[in-house]
Amino acid sequence: MIAFVNNEFIEAENASLGLTDLSIQRGYGIFDFFRTSNHIPLFLDNYLDRFFNSASLLRLQVPHSREDLKQIITEMISRNKIADSAFRLILTGGYSPDYYEVSSPNFFILQQPVQLPDKKKFDQGIKIILHEYMRDFPQVKSTNYLVGVYLQHKVQQHKADDVLYFKDGNILEFPRSNVFAVTKEGTVITPAENVLQGITRMKVLEVARKLYAVEERAITVDELKNAVEVFLTSTTKRIIPVLAVDNVKVGDGKPGEITTSLYNAFLEMEKINL
Amino acid sequence: MIAFVNNEFIEAENASLGLTDLSIQRGYGIFDFFRTSNHIPLFLDNYLDRFFNSASLLRLQVPHSREDLKQIITEMISRNKIADSAFRLILTGGYSPDYYEVSSPNFFILQQPVQLPDKKKFDQGIKIILHEYMRDFPQVKSTNYLVGVYLQHKVQQHKADDVLYFKDGNILEFPRSNVFAVTKEGTVITPAENVLQGITRMKVLEVARKLYAVEERAITVDELKNAVEVFLTSTTKRIIPVLAVDNVKVGDGKPGEITTSLYNAFLEMEKINL
Repeated sequence: MIAFVNNEFIEAENASLGLTDLSIQRGYGIFDFFRTSNHIPLFLDNYLDRFFNSASLLRLQVPHSREDLKQIITEMISRNKIADSAFRLILTGGYSPDYYEVSSPNFFILQQPVQLPDKKKFDQGIKIILHEYMRDFPQVKSTNYLVGVYLQHKVQQHKADDVLYFKDGNILEFPRSNVFAVTKEGTVITPAENVLQGITRMKVLEVARKLYAVEERAITVDELKNAVEVFLTSTTKRIIPVLAVDNVKVGDGKPGEITTSLYNAFLEMEKINL
Repeated sequence: MIAFVNNEFIEAENASLGLTDLSIQRGYGIFDFFRTSNHIPLFLDNYLDRFFNSASLLRLQVPHSREDLKQIITEMISRNKIADSAFRLILTGGYSPDYYEVSSPNFFILQQPVQLPDKKKFDQGIKIILHEYMRDFPQVKSTNYLVGVYLQHKVQQHKADDVLYFKDGNILEFPRSNVFAVTKEGTVITPAENVLQGITRMKVLEVARKLYAVEERAITVDELKNAVEVFLTSTTKRIIPVLAVDNVKVGDGKPGEITTSLYNAFLEMEKINL
């Protein structure tokens, strides 16, 4: 497997960072994460937009142009030959002489095989728990998952599959996914602020607007618990129904009609873009 | 310079981590930081206590016993021959196959020369600004400094030297130091909760209790702004007077009497422990 580190392609197993890098020392880094289907990147421009935006918000300079990045990605696709894969672009604060000030960034790209959940996994859905927390820079895809990784223990203790953050009574996002709900009136709703602007979230909003009433707005925990359907969106999961919140069934405990129709519409949209 | 990585001593410049380490991918790591004076570690047991405590709170296993760590440190002191140095022990979430779940931790120790501020730097003091923020696990010395590193830009814009966090009207800590104040009545006060339990903070409290009334408790921003003396404590700075908060002079804008007496008492305590 070939990785790209700073300016060169190298064997992924030999790829490393020196210990003074600010991602190791101070958790200062951003990344992005997209996938390929049958060797073709999906929604690449949207992911690159977000990557450059995250970098800019944390005052890091991406050391390659968008066109260069696309060429590097194309070369990795052709050399690694993984049809269905996920690409991870990471940009760090660089080697910092004083272990604190941002320096010349380190940049690398990793590719890995990825298997998306099938229809059976969709039908099984997931159970989630809630936890009060808001990420430090919600609009930035930073490498700071201290709370998310820590909470894996709590998720497992509760025999749940994921944890949904809320803050001051409003739901926000999962550590690695966005959340949607469907109201009794059939309106598709998702939190508007203080969440990462997920690319799958954006695409699901696009297809949802053609089919249903859609609202991006604040959603209380109570509203979530009274929703008739709840689902998550993520790059590697597309859409997964949430069938229980804190052990209370959502709707009738099965994937809802609107969730299923959005899932099918999203699969169609994917095909058009591949 | 020799570093210690997992189980071996290696040249620091060759020390590295593979890119799947959770400190790089997810900012999941803890560390500690102590210094040596004339080749002798200062308050080592206190720092090791805190290191093991941080690891335990984030459910990471330190792969060496306390006695082993002391032997490794002793060997680095004898091989690197840096009289006045800082040691950095880092423990990460390890190489994670799924880039998220904690794995077998990576552990390393770095040593670097350090120069402590002299009496002139003490007399110059520092200017600080305030910023609303509380760290995610205040009692853990994690590697997450995303906000602190980001705020360096704001600190420089305001021609200040550091930034003090507050939350819900109460002051907390600097990104890398603790804060103390002296009230009009001559009581030495420092925040009790939601801050890292600094080792220098602990030692300054010890010497302060012999000389003055001391209170560990919640301190409002207003109380800070009305304090007659303010200072910070840190491993590599000992005690530094804060002479301005948000451009408003503290006391008469010079290092205060109590701050100075604590600084002298701390230097005495250091000598006894070396």
